[in-house]
Amino acid sequence: MTTGRFISLEGGEGAGKSTQAKRLAAALAARGIDAVLTREPGGSEGAEAIRTLLMQGDVTRWSAHSEALLFAAARADHVEKTIRPALGAGRWVICDRFIDSSRAYQGVAGGIDDAAVLALHGFGSRGLLPDRTLLLELAPDHGRLRAAGRDGAAADRFAARGEAFHADVAAAFRRFAAHEPDRFRRIDADHAIDSVAEAVFAAIADLLP
Amino acid sequence: MTTGRFISLEGGEGAGKSTQAKRLAAALAARGIDAVLTREPGGSEGAEAIRTLLMQGDVTRWSAHSEALLFAAARADHVEKTIRPALGAGRWVICDRFIDSSRAYQGVAGGIDDAAVLALHGFGSRGLLPDRTLLLELAPDHGRLRAAGRDGAAADRFAARGEAFHADVAAAFRRFAAHEPDRFRRIDADHAIDSVAEAVFAAIADLLP
Repeated sequence: MTTGRFISLEGGEGAGKSTQAKRLAAALAARGIDAVLTREPGGSEGAEAIRTLLMQGDVTRWSAHSEALLFAAARADHVEKTIRPALGAGRWVICDRFIDSSRAYQGVAGGIDDAAVLALHGFGSRGLLPDRTLLLELAPDHGRLRAAGRDGAAADRFAARGEAFHADVAAAFRRFAAHEPDRFRRIDADHAIDSVAEAVFAAIADLLP
Repeated sequence: MTTGRFISLEGGEGAGKSTQAKRLAAALAARGIDAVLTREPGGSEGAEAIRTLLMQGDVTRWSAHSEALLFAAARADHVEKTIRPALGAGRWVICDRFIDSSRAYQGVAGGIDDAAVLALHGFGSRGLLPDRTLLLELAPDHGRLRAAGRDGAAADRFAARGEAFHADVAAAFRRFAAHEPDRFRRIDADHAIDSVAEAVFAAIADLLP
């Protein structure tokens, strides 16, 4: 049995995380490695129910603190029901957004302390961190264009938050990467899908059996 | 404008908390004091939606840690949307269960550290504590009989958890009361509703304007 590895993909909206997550799973499958593809918020029955609560209603429905607790509850369920069982069975897990998205977005949008977000993660998910986190980076303008190309609602959400917000989120991700160079790899996502997929695969190659 | 006071009622199932909460609100109204009657989990739109998540599905749906985070999220919403605005407007708040129920039930049933439950409360609700907590105490057998008299589902829930569980919860509440004698008043709920209502009112009399 191979050792399961836990890979997360992070970055702003429109950076290509879900596309690259699928490409990575396919590349692993081609090498005979079974990977579970999952995403946050969500990824388990309970976490998807919490996701619905988080996505429904007005953006001011939840305070920053309630939202941080709901994200931590969803993640705890996802880790317990989906991620740990898969890793325990020797499977790889590829997750579209994980704790670093909470740190970046709740820190920037909600003004929540990074230490507080990590404390909630420590409580809910025993602080589980990915073996490797791939930070897909894009010039902010390109993220907006890609989000706009996807659907109107995504473009609206992106635009509503403003340029400064997206720049702050990108800067937060870069800080996390600088602070944990072993876990993070920064990937220039401003290229064709195939060439980004190559860079993604190269960034996890040292974890292959 | 009077100063709003925050009163919580705590105790095991069948102890008469909701009945006594209503009686207390009526007694305050008779003195010209406006009180908001609320309950947990719930008490605000978002918290009621989280309550639904907590009550739906199998009892094993949520891990103890996910459940603690969901309760903290619901309480944060309840405090922000209902309790603080009422207190800020000079109204009293009477709440059927609050943080001490999380401490007792999540501690006993989930094995969650009291300090951890209080830390989540500190994060979500800035650690808001009631001005007075009325602990309604009943011999465990009487709680069972009262719960049975209410409806079949309540009796089933009570019975499913076993005598030892209810005794442990009662002991946890007694410990909290012993630790915070200024905030807590223990009330013998093993009497007629009228006489318990008198004891409840006497236990908050020093807070009246």
